[in-house]
Amino acid sequence: MRNVNNSKLRIIPLGGLEQIGLNITAFEFEDSIIVVDCGLAFPEDDMLGIDLVIPDVTYLKDNLSKVKGFVITHGHEDHIGALPYVLKEINVPIYGTKLTIGLIDNKLKEHGLLNNTKRKVIQHGQSINLGAFRIEFIKTNHSISDASALAIYSPAGIVVHTGDFKVDYTPVFGDAIDLQRFGEIGKKGVLALMCDSTNAERPGFTMSEKTVGKTFDNIISEHKTSRIIIATFASNVDRVQQIINSAAKFGRKVVIEGRSMVNVISTAAELGYLDIPQNTLIDIEQMKNYPDDQMVLITTGSQGESMAALSRMAASIHKKVHIKPGDTVIFSSNPIPGNEKAVSKVINELSAKGADVIFQDAHVSGHACQEEIKLIYSLVRPKYAIPVHGEFRHRKAQINLARQLGIPKENTFMLSSGDVIEVGNDSAKVVDHVQTGAILVDGLGVGDVGNIVLRDRQHLAEDGIMIVVLTLEKYSSQLLAGPDIVSRGFVYVRESEDLMDEARNVVDEAVHTCLKKGVTDWGKIKNVIKDSLGGFIWKKTKRDPMILPIIMEV
Amino acid sequence: MRNVNNSKLRIIPLGGLEQIGLNITAFEFEDSIIVVDCGLAFPEDDMLGIDLVIPDVTYLKDNLSKVKGFVITHGHEDHIGALPYVLKEINVPIYGTKLTIGLIDNKLKEHGLLNNTKRKVIQHGQSINLGAFRIEFIKTNHSISDASALAIYSPAGIVVHTGDFKVDYTPVFGDAIDLQRFGEIGKKGVLALMCDSTNAERPGFTMSEKTVGKTFDNIISEHKTSRIIIATFASNVDRVQQIINSAAKFGRKVVIEGRSMVNVISTAAELGYLDIPQNTLIDIEQMKNYPDDQMVLITTGSQGESMAALSRMAASIHKKVHIKPGDTVIFSSNPIPGNEKAVSKVINELSAKGADVIFQDAHVSGHACQEEIKLIYSLVRPKYAIPVHGEFRHRKAQINLARQLGIPKENTFMLSSGDVIEVGNDSAKVVDHVQTGAILVDGLGVGDVGNIVLRDRQHLAEDGIMIVVLTLEKYSSQLLAGPDIVSRGFVYVRESEDLMDEARNVVDEAVHTCLKKGVTDWGKIKNVIKDSLGGFIWKKTKRDPMILPIIMEV
Repeated sequence: MRNVNNSKLRIIPLGGLEQIGLNITAFEFEDSIIVVDCGLAFPEDDMLGIDLVIPDVTYLKDNLSKVKGFVITHGHEDHIGALPYVLKEINVPIYGTKLTIGLIDNKLKEHGLLNNTKRKVIQHGQSINLGAFRIEFIKTNHSISDASALAIYSPAGIVVHTGDFKVDYTPVFGDAIDLQRFGEIGKKGVLALMCDSTNAERPGFTMSEKTVGKTFDNIISEHKTSRIIIATFASNVDRVQQIINSAAKFGRKVVIEGRSMVNVISTAAELGYLDIPQNTLIDIEQMKNYPDDQMVLITTGSQGESMAALSRMAASIHKKVHIKPGDTVIFSSNPIPGNEKAVSKVINELSAKGADVIFQDAHVSGHACQEEIKLIYSLVRPKYAIPVHGEFRHRKAQINLARQLGIPKENTFMLSSGDVIEVGNDSAKVVDHVQTGAILVDGLGVGDVGNIVLRDRQHLAEDGIMIVVLTLEKYSSQLLAGPDIVSRGFVYVRESEDLMDEARNVVDEAVHTCLKKGVTDWGKIKNVIKDSLGGFIWKKTKRDPMILPIIMEV
Repeated sequence: MRNVNNSKLRIIPLGGLEQIGLNITAFEFEDSIIVVDCGLAFPEDDMLGIDLVIPDVTYLKDNLSKVKGFVITHGHEDHIGALPYVLKEINVPIYGTKLTIGLIDNKLKEHGLLNNTKRKVIQHGQSINLGAFRIEFIKTNHSISDASALAIYSPAGIVVHTGDFKVDYTPVFGDAIDLQRFGEIGKKGVLALMCDSTNAERPGFTMSEKTVGKTFDNIISEHKTSRIIIATFASNVDRVQQIINSAAKFGRKVVIEGRSMVNVISTAAELGYLDIPQNTLIDIEQMKNYPDDQMVLITTGSQGESMAALSRMAASIHKKVHIKPGDTVIFSSNPIPGNEKAVSKVINELSAKGADVIFQDAHVSGHACQEEIKLIYSLVRPKYAIPVHGEFRHRKAQINLARQLGIPKENTFMLSSGDVIEVGNDSAKVVDHVQTGAILVDGLGVGDVGNIVLRDRQHLAEDGIMIVVLTLEKYSSQLLAGPDIVSRGFVYVRESEDLMDEARNVVDEAVHTCLKKGVTDWGKIKNVIKDSLGGFIWKKTKRDPMILPIIMEV
């Protein structure tokens, strides 16, 4: 049994710290647990063949009766993406703002879970009561509409969780972040602030989304005769709104291309988050009826994702859009770390087809820079600083900011996923560590690919495999057939016949020596094959293919 | 027979355009060929298991008797790294400045080629005659000392090749770029300018290397009690010089760590390219005799390379240096595209160990930005612009600059590797295309890993392999053993027993049906196994492992 201190609030990040993307945090007080966000991550480079990554929620399963609901800050994949997987085991209600729930509904529909899941739309300023907790949704700005910070009221005190945010005094849609409310709650006294760290290394203030609109106007007016193609994030509804505004201003029609963007935009439009002037949006099939200088195409693929619409256009495998000289392509995005080369490849391909590629001033971040982070700390004035949403370096940078603002070092916390921090008025400390981790999803398999399988894939990827098969007679252990060697991913056999002949001789001799000595233990025979062949191949090639001996018995 | 137009100069980039790194260009006039640079590239992400990439020099081998020598612009890997491989087939003399030849000598020694290769040291301002060509070495600035541009004089006219360069009016070592000579040659009339494109997308002027020295002074003076660790490129001798200067100024000792850096620095020091104050450099073994505030460590690993010294320190597997709170680590480098995540991982690990990590203002580029490129064009005033050293996007950006300076579009050339451009006073055009390409080096194998092997490695990496073995009786085709299934990199078998049992049944049934029908063609039996098992696995898991049937005969 776990030893729960009844007077304290326990905060448990179940992901999102080491493994960026898996944003999910449990708040526990006595027999109530609420869960903030439930995101997925995309695989790291060494997770070969993995499609996506979801958090290990063993802790929630072990405390299922306590879990009151998921409270979602905004509708990005790294905050909602794991819900369809996790809900199968932890089916509790989901709370979020209108667009957030709309995007979650899309997901649940895809997974056939819509009818079995309770969702509730909450408005900014509203609160919900879940067990021992009251949770207030506070308006913020981010690169998706309807983002919220959360004020989490517990008997032990208040925690403010910013979600992903920036301070935008002139947002494209709706209101600016509710700074007054942050100040008001701060005045009440806040135990802990859990603040977005993404841009904590960047000085200054993130520019308003509105500045990007001006860039679009300028680019379109400077490329009067061009077809304009703009790639951005599918979920950035405000960006799409601004592109539509600029297009309409210059009398151009707009086509939206790319499955995820079509999905998000139609949801956003249905729910009233997009204002599309009549006769502006046209179907991609109608594009041929308009000249280039009347077209703006908004597309996915701003990160160079190989299957996204823009990459397919660049590689000439898109069925409906063919890049040609005179096209102007705008990247309204920055490459996410790790995607730089993929983006550059797409830019090269577009340039080679004669397109003019623009990637300056057409993007602003959705996350707070240093001055905004300091502003939130100064409004909330928390006792404890628990940075979230960032790599170690980013969270540490936020702690440096918090310390500049007078928060003592011992009141700042660099947590690891699974750490249980008990927070009270007298003290805050890490008291326990629970099971967490990344669960790998490959095709339909959830969690059936682990470290051993990944290590094998890595080994196979590096140097390929050599399979040695032989057939022995059951009782006499006499060699009836083989040893034969089959290789894949090692060398092109037709051009390396000598090497393969020699390899066969090496194995042949090793097996015959073994059998002559009367060795009948298959494990031993296999080891002799591995050692002799492996040694020979390393000496000849300085490579280390996987060697897999298979013995059959007749 | 190739049809050589005797009155024209032929320029043939044999690499370095699509495949960045493989810088090698042939200049041919009648029966003379000279080769400028001979670089290697590091493998792209999809070149699984490949160690490095060298250019295909079939064209040079086919014209061996014409080849007069290699003329090398500077000592970076992407300009000299393939020499040891290429010299084995094309053993002609190598010409370069003192440090360049010194670094080439290190390489030749490693490969046991020093005694069989002629090298000749050329000074800036000197010329050499090679067949129909005269080649003049012109002083430039770059992130390695002793870099040269080349003026290539042929009976058809003059070509200026900048090598990799920047304009540094206040270089750390030696003279500034010889702008006067560029002007003087320009006045004579230059046919073509082949200019570095790396930074052609960046406006402005690259800062002087000297500005970095000030940053080092500031950082050291602000971190008086810290041990200072600075990571930079092994070959940036001037950077190392400035670190040594700053260290000496503050009375600190300097340790150099990392094999490639120790090699380059000792060569540079021997040849007089480094001025090390007495009693400043100490051995890493002596480090323990000095307190932290008297130490500066210069190390490799600024790109997050997993085996480099800094990465080993960060991962706590370096034998002699242990990162601790209070250490200040400076990245005197920018991540090369593709290395961003690796660098970030090292920064996170260093931060987690308590080190203060600095990566701002401690680096300047070694390549010319837009204003410098315009300066060189304005001095040289070439008839034709043939941008080199850059991805398509960068070379295209340089062409845009050239056109702004009045060079007509038809006189600008975006070449592909292997294109043969004939250049004369009347005209320049691509007249032919010769064999080029990237040859993959994996361990000791040069060129034995091709597309089929890479495709297999990719397939294995994605979903692993399932091997189906069975033994048939030679004449009756009766099933004597199997079919057995062995998998690697697919699923963790112990946790997927049901799936594997079902798979075995599927294969069993398919094989028995085949044999019952009297099918004896092994190819057919193998196809039936692939189809039935592949279909079953896809249906169950949405994965597509490689399926490899092996039939033995007794």
